[in-house]
Amino acid sequence: MVLVTRKASFSASHRLYNPAWPDARNAEVFGKCNNPNGHGHNYDIEVTVGGDPPEDTGMVIDLKKLADIIEAEIIERVDHKNLNVDVDFLLGTIPTAENMAIAFWNILAPKITEGTLRSIKLYESANNVVEYRG
Amino acid sequence: MVLVTRKASFSASHRLYNPAWPDARNAEVFGKCNNPNGHGHNYDIEVTVGGDPPEDTGMVIDLKKLADIIEAEIIERVDHKNLNVDVDFLLGTIPTAENMAIAFWNILAPKITEGTLRSIKLYESANNVVEYRG
Amino acid sequence: MVLVTRKASFSASHRLYNPAWPDARNAEVFGKCNNPNGHGHNYDIEVTVGGDPPEDTGMVIDLKKLADIIEAEIIERVDHKNLNVDVDFLLGTIPTAENMAIAFWNILAPKITEGTLRSIKLYESANNVVEYRG
Amino acid sequence: MVLVTRKASFSASHRLYNPAWPDARNAEVFGKCNNPNGHGHNYDIEVTVGGDPPEDTGMVIDLKKLADIIEAEIIERVDHKNLNVDVDFLLGTIPTAENMAIAFWNILAPKITEGTLRSIKLYESANNVVEYRG
Amino acid sequence: MVLVTRKASFSASHRLYNPAWPDARNAEVFGKCNNPNGHGHNYDIEVTVGGDPPEDTGMVIDLKKLADIIEAEIIERVDHKNLNVDVDFLLGTIPTAENMAIAFWNILAPKITEGTLRSIKLYESANNVVEYRG
Amino acid sequence: MVLVTRKASFSASHRLYNPAWPDARNAEVFGKCNNPNGHGHNYDIEVTVGGDPPEDTGMVIDLKKLADIIEAEIIERVDHKNLNVDVDFLLGTIPTAENMAIAFWNILAPKITEGTLRSIKLYESANNVVEYRG
Repeated sequence: MVLVTRKASFSASHRLYNPAWPDARNAEVFGKCNNPNGHGHNYDIEVTVGGDPPEDTGMVIDLKKLADIIEAEIIERVDHKNLNVDVDFLLGTIPTAENMAIAFWNILAPKITEGTLRSIKLYESANNVVEYRG
Repeated sequence: MVLVTRKASFSASHRLYNPAWPDARNAEVFGKCNNPNGHGHNYDIEVTVGGDPPEDTGMVIDLKKLADIIEAEIIERVDHKNLNVDVDFLLGTIPTAENMAIAFWNILAPKITEGTLRSIKLYESANNVVEYRG
Repeated sequence: MVLVTRKASFSASHRLYNPAWPDARNAEVFGKCNNPNGHGHNYDIEVTVGGDPPEDTGMVIDLKKLADIIEAEIIERVDHKNLNVDVDFLLGTIPTAENMAIAFWNILAPKITEGTLRSIKLYESANNVVEYRG
Repeated sequence: MVLVTRKASFSASHRLYNPAWPDARNAEVFGKCNNPNGHGHNYDIEVTVGGDPPEDTGMVIDLKKLADIIEAEIIERVDHKNLNVDVDFLLGTIPTAENMAIAFWNILAPKITEGTLRSIKLYESANNVVEYRG
Repeated sequence: MVLVTRKASFSASHRLYNPAWPDARNAEVFGKCNNPNGHGHNYDIEVTVGGDPPEDTGMVIDLKKLADIIEAEIIERVDHKNLNVDVDFLLGTIPTAENMAIAFWNILAPKITEGTLRSIKLYESANNVVEYRG
Repeated sequence: MVLVTRKASFSASHRLYNPAWPDARNAEVFGKCNNPNGHGHNYDIEVTVGGDPPEDTGMVIDLKKLADIIEAEIIERVDHKNLNVDVDFLLGTIPTAENMAIAFWNILAPKITEGTLRSIKLYESANNVVEYRG
């Protein structure tokens, strides 16, 4: 099996807080990420698909097609958006990188029909990364 | 003369719009950056100071001191903030990277007393950079 | 004045040789880059424009517009191409990074009408870079 | 077990096409990568070897030795080459990143006698990566 | 399960040699890394923790807390140090990247109580990396 | 004029101190960099040469030749060395990045006979950079 990975990027804002909690507890748990007016990031997403490259194409999946799926299903819906209020599939969840990676997996897994989705890696900053493997 | 550069990073959200304009013109000029609920970035800032390294230290400016100035004067005030409403020295200006670089220069120039401030470079994303040299 | 820089990328192949020279001299001067069947690179291009950001927009030039100009005038014409035979504006020149940067300048300078073109930087690899400032 | 990884780079050109197919199908499947005169990339290769570091050296494998093996067996044969015609071990296969990673594995696995080859990762560009684990 | 990774950096010097060996064997086995007066590196360390993000926080582990643990337990003890003589937990071992990654694991594993330590990745340079997964 | 830049890397250790000063003053001025047993870095050096590319080669200077000069004159003498005691041309100077850049300039300027040396840029870490332009 060969793993192929395609990277994409988007910029978004968010605020981490649990609406069921009082302000003091939100501030304690989420720290600077709880700033009431929000903050933001340039996110990098790496989508990894595994499969056997067929002999006639030598490609697990056409990376241009994979790029188009990521663009249409993810980037178009989160780029230059506020993740707390603008993104339908994140409403009702705390937009941590962990929850975002799981949500991206749930959207992309059924769309990928050549090979199988194996990993979603999300870089929130140069120092903070999460990965979800389903 | 030797130029020394120190890099730092912060994460912030913003929305680009001119309050004097109707919505349609704001949308046309600022495009995706005009999204009403804002978006955000991981910014990298590079501060360059020029001077002659004195023989007894061999350093234009102690880079730890320069790092402390950048942290106290800039990062503390913009990191995990909303640049439209949380940052006093940006109130009343459109928080484009250009305007931010000029504002950073105006704050840092008088604080740097070893060597002379020569450049503020601000990376809004991997593909977008601005530089102000006073 | 503020300098704004937009980065873009393309992949292309080329072969370095001077048709007026015998093979031995081409091999001596251009070394591995003279391989008869060519080789290739992922190129990064950084286009820098300088100007004063007007107060009503805070932008020297809309970076989206600059990106579109770079895409239409340069990337569309060189990406996934053979620089020796597929690119009209390089025909008759040796496609070194130096000559490419000059050719890109000559194309882009008249197209940039907000601000003024100040620099074309071309990365042929992580270790090799050229810059042309007109 | 400890995994050690050594990175190397090369520049090469290629054209993706299946000689058994008509032109129209090649153009449809391989898109821009099917350009008749080829294109090229700066490739990064990461070779990962796993093993237990012996107490007297503390090293799974001397990374200098691993670097020399990669240089002699891979880089010397593909750097500044046309992957369709200049590289004996790729003749008869479509030089996709997937097929290249598998070919590199088959060459390197028997040459690595301290520790065991665990992964070949090949970056075709900043956004496109493949990995083969045997 | 979700994997979260936090990156940190430090600068240190070391010399590779086995005190039980004669000079000639040390020189042969460790090459340039055996230079009697030592050399040094900027090291990057990536610490990966796995777990299920609880619904009320959406975080496997607060990355700020993880950063603080890495800072207090590792960075404070190795940054701007000589790894052969200044670092208590490395005394008596050859400070190869392999042995350092294992030592870091042994220190960090019991300190991480939200989620479970899954990997220590240590970059000795841009081209040399080791990973230990316990 | 076109500027061409070649990048190279080396790893070295050093200790910052002024032998004419008492320990307390050295500790105060140089901080962590004054650690008695030294520390180290992976340094990146960028050498920039300016000139007009002649029509028959299209190259300001053959970058392979420039790379060979940097390797022979700089890298061979500083890589895997202790900058305080192993490097003849640094003896008697405090090995700050500023002093190193000036020393590298003085060595390289007379060796570069195609084009003219224009800049030495030295990265001591990802966040600390110095540049000397003669």
